[in-house]
Amino acid sequence: MRRILIVGAGRSSSALVRYLLEKSFSENLKIIIADISIENAKKLTQGHENASIVELDIFDVEKRKALVKDAAIVISMLPARFHLEIAKDCLELSKHLVTASYISKDLMAMDAEVKEKGLVFMNEIGLDPGIDHMSAMQVIDRIKDNGGKMLLFESFTGGLVAPESDNNLWNYKFTWNPRNVVVAGQGGVAKFIQEGKYKYIPYHKLFRRTEFLSIEGYGKFEALANRDSLNYKEVYGLQDVLTLYRGTIRRVGFSRAWNIFVQLGMTDDSYTMEGSESMSYRDFTNSFLPYKPHDSVELKLRHYLKIDQDDVIWDKLLELDIFNSEKIVGLRDATPAQILQKILMDKWTLQKEDKDMIVMYHKFGFELDGRKRQIESNMVVLGEDQTYTAMAKTVGLPVAIASLSILNGDIKSPGVQLPISKEVYEPILKELENYKLHFNEKEVDYLGYNPHNLGA
Amino acid sequence: MRRILIVGAGRSSSALVRYLLEKSFSENLKIIIADISIENAKKLTQGHENASIVELDIFDVEKRKALVKDAAIVISMLPARFHLEIAKDCLELSKHLVTASYISKDLMAMDAEVKEKGLVFMNEIGLDPGIDHMSAMQVIDRIKDNGGKMLLFESFTGGLVAPESDNNLWNYKFTWNPRNVVVAGQGGVAKFIQEGKYKYIPYHKLFRRTEFLSIEGYGKFEALANRDSLNYKEVYGLQDVLTLYRGTIRRVGFSRAWNIFVQLGMTDDSYTMEGSESMSYRDFTNSFLPYKPHDSVELKLRHYLKIDQDDVIWDKLLELDIFNSEKIVGLRDATPAQILQKILMDKWTLQKEDKDMIVMYHKFGFELDGRKRQIESNMVVLGEDQTYTAMAKTVGLPVAIASLSILNGDIKSPGVQLPISKEVYEPILKELENYKLHFNEKEVDYLGYNPHNLGA
Repeated sequence: MRRILIVGAGRSSSALVRYLLEKSFSENLKIIIADISIENAKKLTQGHENASIVELDIFDVEKRKALVKDAAIVISMLPARFHLEIAKDCLELSKHLVTASYISKDLMAMDAEVKEKGLVFMNEIGLDPGIDHMSAMQVIDRIKDNGGKMLLFESFTGGLVAPESDNNLWNYKFTWNPRNVVVAGQGGVAKFIQEGKYKYIPYHKLFRRTEFLSIEGYGKFEALANRDSLNYKEVYGLQDVLTLYRGTIRRVGFSRAWNIFVQLGMTDDSYTMEGSESMSYRDFTNSFLPYKPHDSVELKLRHYLKIDQDDVIWDKLLELDIFNSEKIVGLRDATPAQILQKILMDKWTLQKEDKDMIVMYHKFGFELDGRKRQIESNMVVLGEDQTYTAMAKTVGLPVAIASLSILNGDIKSPGVQLPISKEVYEPILKELENYKLHFNEKEVDYLGYNPHNLGA
Repeated sequence: MRRILIVGAGRSSSALVRYLLEKSFSENLKIIIADISIENAKKLTQGHENASIVELDIFDVEKRKALVKDAAIVISMLPARFHLEIAKDCLELSKHLVTASYISKDLMAMDAEVKEKGLVFMNEIGLDPGIDHMSAMQVIDRIKDNGGKMLLFESFTGGLVAPESDNNLWNYKFTWNPRNVVVAGQGGVAKFIQEGKYKYIPYHKLFRRTEFLSIEGYGKFEALANRDSLNYKEVYGLQDVLTLYRGTIRRVGFSRAWNIFVQLGMTDDSYTMEGSESMSYRDFTNSFLPYKPHDSVELKLRHYLKIDQDDVIWDKLLELDIFNSEKIVGLRDATPAQILQKILMDKWTLQKEDKDMIVMYHKFGFELDGRKRQIESNMVVLGEDQTYTAMAKTVGLPVAIASLSILNGDIKSPGVQLPISKEVYEPILKELENYKLHFNEKEVDYLGYNPHNLGA
């Protein structure tokens, strides 16, 4: 039997393990799951005969190496900062490696040696990064192969709550790491190109610069700019493109309301607040407002941020209970972002029956035979339950399929890489379709950034 | 003759050198000025018989030590990062040291040795820090000595253009390092206490949370919060105070207009802009606005930041020419902050006849014999010309006076220190009065933060 070692069996490993165990009979696989805590692994394998579970502290070098040595291929589902140690083992012991994380500089530095040994170190093969790369490159390559010239590429991804579980005013729940949602967009300006013009959005304006998207059957969404759009010029071979924009998808209205937290300073993670442990939610809110003891926190906030009395934003704030003077934060030496996260988790934590949803949306503008055209392509994935979430499926299935393809020699070009070559994305996207992870595509007139030729 | 070594003869050394040369006959002083460039020192000394000028590269250890060795006391007017080397020499060669900079951790670490040798290492003895410490501690000590209990301390300082030279819509010119003005307020939340409540203002709201101040004969000013108010609790012995606030003074209306730059992202110094060298001022402005080719940059900006058609802010922007498509930035790989600084320097650079002004304003709230009272105290200093600016006088004179007081043994308590003890501030404030650097004081009813008892 061919041994696949999965290191780390967190929330994103469920669909990965299920896929490999399903294939284990026909493909002759033994799945070894190593984690510091084996509880989740037990739940995922349910005593499956082709699975075995090992308790592993990732810093136990000897045990770790022994496991790698016995494997035919290694999948690291650990937090990104731990990949490098595993990668070193894989290089030393000549094993293929698969991760869903961005390629670090340290990992990239191993490329020459990895190639020399004929190994495949596949990374960025989850959802985002992962399915975004593959689905985008498939269309971009097709356009170029047909002789087209790329003009525009926009790509949006969002982890949301499924319509059937969407029952709060924000149309949002935490389907992944809440902390990442609270601090999203911080740490640098959002930078992109529109029709050849470089544009920059500072963090405090990010949530007021959204664009709209519609998906048949799912309604309207909004997207806000990511920081990193321009990195994709080189990676996707889009050096001459006029528009390059990557963004995050939310339901319409989320960002305008979230902006209240940004404006107040509640998303700041850079300092701790005095007396955070014993402050009420109301105290927390009041900390960001002027001292005026004879005005209510409510009116001070409305006035400070110019919120009209009939603005729906207000109901969103009330729903989160940020004016409650009874609820206590209870976190010692907490940053504003940590306190806000706690307040949000009261309301936005998925309930037992809740399901999540992944939405991805690409726009490709191009010129072919003197005519400008645009392809719009989108994927919606719904979670099955709280284990086989849309997030776990869209992250885990590409990892699983890539691993098996490498094991079977269908993907064989060696090196530290991400899935942008046909050899890689074609078999994986094809197999993902069998699991209902597929893109709906339509070709429309080129819209670019002046669709209605306004003012001309 | 007693030799005073001044290392560094930049813009802030003019009044310092003049004071010491004036005193050189009666006090038997020889003033040695050492700098890497001797041009400015020549201008300041004008061949005075008690002055000598030495060319010195601060990293020329041998020459530096020889100069320190010959001196009775050393004044370092270098940028703060260079003080430590001089301080080590002073410790080794048993010389007193005076600087106008904040005490660094490395310098503080020398305290025990400095005390052991009976040396005075006086720091933070310029304007801010400097005169602020001394003038505040003088009133605080007086209140406490009378049996009063401190309730409130607020302190504001600003470097502005003198009324006679105030001829632009911003009522502002660069009287000091322009870069510091452009990035002012960045790098952390502004944190203070008002009536026992901790308050936090994020950078993007800082310029919309101003307070007003009035000074007889000089009209109305506004103040925005500094980041560091709470540091002064310990230093000034104000652990139990209910209100602690430090701020920066501008003319009324400056901050509301400056907020436009903050909102657009023009003050960001953390990334470089594509094609900055060849972009026009108009391109620069447009980089922060949405792509809409059939709307003007002007209307996009008005709409984005909700600027009414009759708002005076608009004229302030026009005065700076930020919509000009002919003027080219001409700076390679520049950050937004660097480009904004360049645009502002076109208009805000002091002209030959222009004079500057320093404004400092303190509020002290206290309770004495069961009654709450408030002392308000302010100082306004006008520059004489472009050499003997208000800034140079308010920084240089306290340094000069402190140095002479140390030399004469009037200040003798050893250690690495700042001027908060009576022994230090009394002789210095007294001598400053002879140079028209004095505070006007009035006692009023306690105002605190609820002066009109509104809503009660």
